Amino acid sequence: MLNKNIRTQEIDHQWCIAEEKFSIDTNKHFEGLFTQGNGYMHIRGSFEEGLESTVQDEEYLRMPVNVTLEKPRHPKTKWGTFIPGIVGIHPLLKMEMINLPYFLELDFCVMGEKLDMEQCKIREYKRWLDLRDGCLHRGFIWETKAGLHLKLQYLRFISMADKHLSIQQVHIQALSGEGNLAMDGGINWGVRTNGYNHFKAVRTAVDDATFISAETITDGGNRVLMISSMEASEEIFADKVTDSKKVMYHGNKPMKAGDYFTIQKVTSVVTDRDNEAGFLEERGKNYLAVVQEQGYEKLYERHLQAWTEKWRASDIKITGDDKVQLAMRASIYHLIRSNCENDSRVAICAKGYAGEAYFGRYFWDTEINMLPFFLHTNPEAARNLILFRYNTLEGAKKNARAYGYEGARYAWESSITGEEQCPCWQYGDHEVHITADIIYAMVHYVNGTGDMDFIRDYGIDMMVETARYWVQRVDWNKEGYYELLGVMGPDEYLPMTRNNVYTNRMVKFSLSKTIEYLEILRNENEIGYLELKHRLGLNSHEIEKFEEVKEKLKISYDESSEIIFQSDDFKSYADLDFNTIWKDRTKPFGDFISQEKNYRSKALKQADVLEMILLYPQDFTSQQLSHNYDYYEPITTHDSSLSAAVHGILAAWMGRMEEAEKFLEKVVAIDMSLEKKGAAEGIHIANCGGLWQMVVYGFAGLKSAMWESEIKLEPHLPGTWEKVEIPIMWHGKQYRLIVTKDSYEVREES
Amino acid sequence: MLNKNIRTQEIDHQWCIAEEKFSIDTNKHFEGLFTQGNGYMHIRGSFEEGLESTVQDEEYLRMPVNVTLEKPRHPKTKWGTFIPGIVGIHPLLKMEMINLPYFLELDFCVMGEKLDMEQCKIREYKRWLDLRDGCLHRGFIWETKAGLHLKLQYLRFISMADKHLSIQQVHIQALSGEGNLAMDGGINWGVRTNGYNHFKAVRTAVDDATFISAETITDGGNRVLMISSMEASEEIFADKVTDSKKVMYHGNKPMKAGDYFTIQKVTSVVTDRDNEAGFLEERGKNYLAVVQEQGYEKLYERHLQAWTEKWRASDIKITGDDKVQLAMRASIYHLIRSNCENDSRVAICAKGYAGEAYFGRYFWDTEINMLPFFLHTNPEAARNLILFRYNTLEGAKKNARAYGYEGARYAWESSITGEEQCPCWQYGDHEVHITADIIYAMVHYVNGTGDMDFIRDYGIDMMVETARYWVQRVDWNKEGYYELLGVMGPDEYLPMTRNNVYTNRMVKFSLSKTIEYLEILRNENEIGYLELKHRLGLNSHEIEKFEEVKEKLKISYDESSEIIFQSDDFKSYADLDFNTIWKDRTKPFGDFISQEKNYRSKALKQADVLEMILLYPQDFTSQQLSHNYDYYEPITTHDSSLSAAVHGILAAWMGRMEEAEKFLEKVVAIDMSLEKKGAAEGIHIANCGGLWQMVVYGFAGLKSAMWESEIKLEPHLPGTWEKVEIPIMWHGKQYRLIVTKDSYEVREES
Repeated sequence: MLNKNIRTQEIDHQWCIAEEKFSIDTNKHFEGLFTQGNGYMHIRGSFEEGLESTVQDEEYLRMPVNVTLEKPRHPKTKWGTFIPGIVGIHPLLKMEMINLPYFLELDFCVMGEKLDMEQCKIREYKRWLDLRDGCLHRGFIWETKAGLHLKLQYLRFISMADKHLSIQQVHIQALSGEGNLAMDGGINWGVRTNGYNHFKAVRTAVDDATFISAETITDGGNRVLMISSMEASEEIFADKVTDSKKVMYHGNKPMKAGDYFTIQKVTSVVTDRDNEAGFLEERGKNYLAVVQEQGYEKLYERHLQAWTEKWRASDIKITGDDKVQLAMRASIYHLIRSNCENDSRVAICAKGYAGEAYFGRYFWDTEINMLPFFLHTNPEAARNLILFRYNTLEGAKKNARAYGYEGARYAWESSITGEEQCPCWQYGDHEVHITADIIYAMVHYVNGTGDMDFIRDYGIDMMVETARYWVQRVDWNKEGYYELLGVMGPDEYLPMTRNNVYTNRMVKFSLSKTIEYLEILRNENEIGYLELKHRLGLNSHEIEKFEEVKEKLKISYDESSEIIFQSDDFKSYADLDFNTIWKDRTKPFGDFISQEKNYRSKALKQADVLEMILLYPQDFTSQQLSHNYDYYEPITTHDSSLSAAVHGILAAWMGRMEEAEKFLEKVVAIDMSLEKKGAAEGIHIANCGGLWQMVVYGFAGLKSAMWESEIKLEPHLPGTWEKVEIPIMWHGKQYRLIVTKDSYEVREES
Repeated sequence: MLNKNIRTQEIDHQWCIAEEKFSIDTNKHFEGLFTQGNGYMHIRGSFEEGLESTVQDEEYLRMPVNVTLEKPRHPKTKWGTFIPGIVGIHPLLKMEMINLPYFLELDFCVMGEKLDMEQCKIREYKRWLDLRDGCLHRGFIWETKAGLHLKLQYLRFISMADKHLSIQQVHIQALSGEGNLAMDGGINWGVRTNGYNHFKAVRTAVDDATFISAETITDGGNRVLMISSMEASEEIFADKVTDSKKVMYHGNKPMKAGDYFTIQKVTSVVTDRDNEAGFLEERGKNYLAVVQEQGYEKLYERHLQAWTEKWRASDIKITGDDKVQLAMRASIYHLIRSNCENDSRVAICAKGYAGEAYFGRYFWDTEINMLPFFLHTNPEAARNLILFRYNTLEGAKKNARAYGYEGARYAWESSITGEEQCPCWQYGDHEVHITADIIYAMVHYVNGTGDMDFIRDYGIDMMVETARYWVQRVDWNKEGYYELLGVMGPDEYLPMTRNNVYTNRMVKFSLSKTIEYLEILRNENEIGYLELKHRLGLNSHEIEKFEEVKEKLKISYDESSEIIFQSDDFKSYADLDFNTIWKDRTKPFGDFISQEKNYRSKALKQADVLEMILLYPQDFTSQQLSHNYDYYEPITTHDSSLSAAVHGILAAWMGRMEEAEKFLEKVVAIDMSLEKKGAAEGIHIANCGGLWQMVVYGFAGLKSAMWESEIKLEPHLPGTWEKVEIPIMWHGKQYRLIVTKDSYEVREES
């Protein structure tokens, strides 16, 4: 029988994100921010009992539009249960991650009054996510209409050690009054993904005495089995019931002042896509059996241990700025949680598996914004993320063919196959830089780890195939150069430009590295090189073509350029009077202008030339940096969450600390601000990587492993910061960077 | 009792489009080409009995894409019953014309074998549309499996005189064998529009002895009532049956060699949107009563009389080219049929109400391609078409506001409200020339008729409101001019260009005419002008702004320009090797290139600079015409049906008759070619206007009434043409142009 008490813990404000008071306005934001997960599965921080005012299975047609500016549905609450790789086809939005049945459901009812945070009388409410162990806590007093006052304490976690297990506990104590407490707990498949039903069939089982289960067959052809077992510190759950949406345990307990008890619900989740072999049912039950054998404490210990190891490799300690300290840890928490470190069939989706907004898709964010964090805290995970791109090379080849080219063209929005999923053509067709970004990131990984095997085994194929695409994607200009026309750069507010400098620079780098690595492979192993050429059907004429395009691809700036124009046609766009148009700067600029006008004007959604300067710092003088920063910053709207960190890093590099701190505030606010409620649709996981980069590259001033073989720092700490400590993996060794106001140290750790 | 015989008629190949042999491959094409109508209602030329192999109520999601290149669904047959103005909202495609219940259904069955053109044994098949009276005929012998051989002759028309009536007759004769013939005839609402169900409810009635009816309530809120009455030359239709999709008369007749009889079905169609007052049921029954009282002959006479009058005003007689003669008449037939001459709440949709493809929407085609025909054959109809734009001015104002501007911005794709319905943003947002095209057409109408009242009563409001839009839509360039950025010109293969010369020229014209007419109105009536200013809230500062923008709007060419570049950035697009890409020139170029590549290359979908030269001929020297023709023609794909006629007219103007005739052939082929099957999804009604323009402006060389107050001709007839005779209304007078190889005559008619 379960222990009558549950573990309680203090709130440490450097480690815990706390919701001090319930408000329906911020509920969806906290649902996103409190998302729990372990790489294998993820679940938003919704209340166990839901909200009576909102249905979770409304069906509607979500249209393909600019997601950044979309007004989302369901302002109050949206469940989210995601397993990376479990996807289905939405008729308009293409392949999307499926929002799976909600297995956390626990309902309480006193004399006909259902527990509901929005509608019931609730006192002493508090909820917090402890980042150290990823446990979500909730406590409050419920004053029921029947006069029974109950104190409830919730605890739940998704085990970081036992990836298929979720554990929930609730401790309930009657403070005064009396009455019957009815309880239901189980699995609810009344869930739609962006308004669409991906469930082809659901089969439940309740006949076994020890569990209930729901097996879902998705339209993607997967089987997802959830098995829950519930127990209490006394005999409560006698019944099991099934209706059209749910399978539930049911129990009743008459309560009077002084009574208390605990309930526990353990759920195992398995799918036919898991790496583990075996029959679903057997595996699911086996995981539950472990809990029954070992008990809660052992299970929690293993979970805590796993998190502790993660934190040892990645925790950044900031002394002198508790707000940023907590935001930094929240970012690291979500990055760790989102990463499925042993599964290269998936990567990290744009919302960190914490919401439906970007359909669970993979963008360049992974490579450019998140990869540095993994490269320096968990190189194996970084390798895995790049390997995902190798695993989707066939999809990239299909994309190239679909556009009429040879070689490989990575999808602007990738799902698990690598085929283009972007439903809006202006991004999918024209934002071609992704294909070069991936090669950049791969080289970054190799330069940071020395893992040349990756090039030999996988990377060279990716490079050759993408080079084949580029030599066909360029156009020859009679003036004597190759060029890239019809390109959307990182700045998504200009959809079709000529020679976007970021893109051209990336492509030149990519081609140049391809040629360089081919040369290295040829020199180190003549036979291996012949095999490689044979495998890829590569001939020297083709390599000459790579060389020619690399040499003659237009780079529209040089060291003498004062302002580097984002594209050759940039000057021809209209100037805007931002002050007249952008009436409320707390809202996105895009809300105040039509797309039509935006697309013909000089208003950047995000860093573009400045992103290039960040990635190729050695190319530019400090004067170029400051001139371009001064030119672009006033016309950049930062409507994308990928922008503020870039500006912040560059400001720090220039020692403009006031500006850098302003951007730091922006970066922190993106998911943490209660006014912005930015986490409502999921975590801006690229910005989590952005915050890490801002602290590491910007303030600590670490030089990128892309360009430096040794650790070099050039710190610029924000005013209030006394010290920052950063664990860094560098070429297989563990270091600790310790930066204070006036000194820094690079300490090698054992 | 009905007469046992029906009228038969010879096929006159200058007047009749004939299908000599049934082929399932061309069936859908003939359905479109044989569309009948009378302005009020339209129905595709589908077989009365349908095809067993194709359902008409399949539901699916039609996506918003480039319609020109879309592969349509239902290759074999699609019913189409349309009443201009009866529209509903499609969840993806926005407001669309509703495909209404099919009221022509007549099914025959012999001993379990259903009559079906695809599956039965059919001999001596022939079908033809007689353009003189819009009657559709079909005749064939059906050799049933049971050995009964039947000869069937069909006749049907939609009355041009009694707009709410449709008449069908079938004469059936047993040639040999014997057996029972079962017959059903009625109304079928198993119809979907682009896969979507717009019918909220259908109510049937069969209890009255004399008719059956189906009343449909659409999701647009309209009521559409169809009442059919069937009779035969003997007592046959004893039963009436209703199922979930149909309400039908049913009858049986045992047949043996020598037996024959005739059946007639008359249907009246009324809606709550009709101009006529009265209760639907009463009106519908009254129309039927007229038939019963007066009999078929009287009804047909009135119908023929109405068509004869139409033809008197519009028929073009071509001696020496029967193929073009027939195509010309087919074009005129569809233009007349598509035009709802007394209802300025609707215009002429892009497919001439003969198919679902363009959703029944109104484009610039009406103004630029079709208006000249109406202006010179039925000025009242031309006036009505412009009045439609006045009636949708409120919608145009809403569009302007939606984009953040004042004034009025006409929809690229308009339905009955004038609000933008284009589901693809690149057209809807950027193809702004429509707003100026409408003003051009209005001035054309006024110049051709002298109807200055139209300006006073309606036009000045349209001009001032669109001018207000333009002065906000332009951007100021520091070089000292206004410009139009982010514009798609007529060439839809370049979605966002700078200073498209066609558009800028149109806007300058529009502003300049606005200022001119304001001045005229001020001079002719000071008080009226003050009232006008008050009504429109117009002040002199605003008029000065119109003047300033008109003066300073960039026109990127002058009389010295050899090549006029389509837009300021035109030269920066990539050159294409058409021969390599366009492997099969019988198919659209767009089928061989991705949109991505197309959008960055110099490949025109249709005439753009040349369209401008056509509309402003006096602006350009003959050298400019030939230089630009020679530059653009080779890079123009003519993927749009609006292109060939323009090129053909200009070629004729230059006396390049071989080229002109090549384009004439193209223009004729667009809807008439059995290889292209171009009419399958509806009539290319703009091209019908294009053919008229080609004959009148191109070959007869009539100078546009826009620029000339007197009739002037400069003919260039194709080689085989001996004579062409054209009726022309000019400033209220009727003329007849008679052009032969070496002479021409302008004859005023009484």
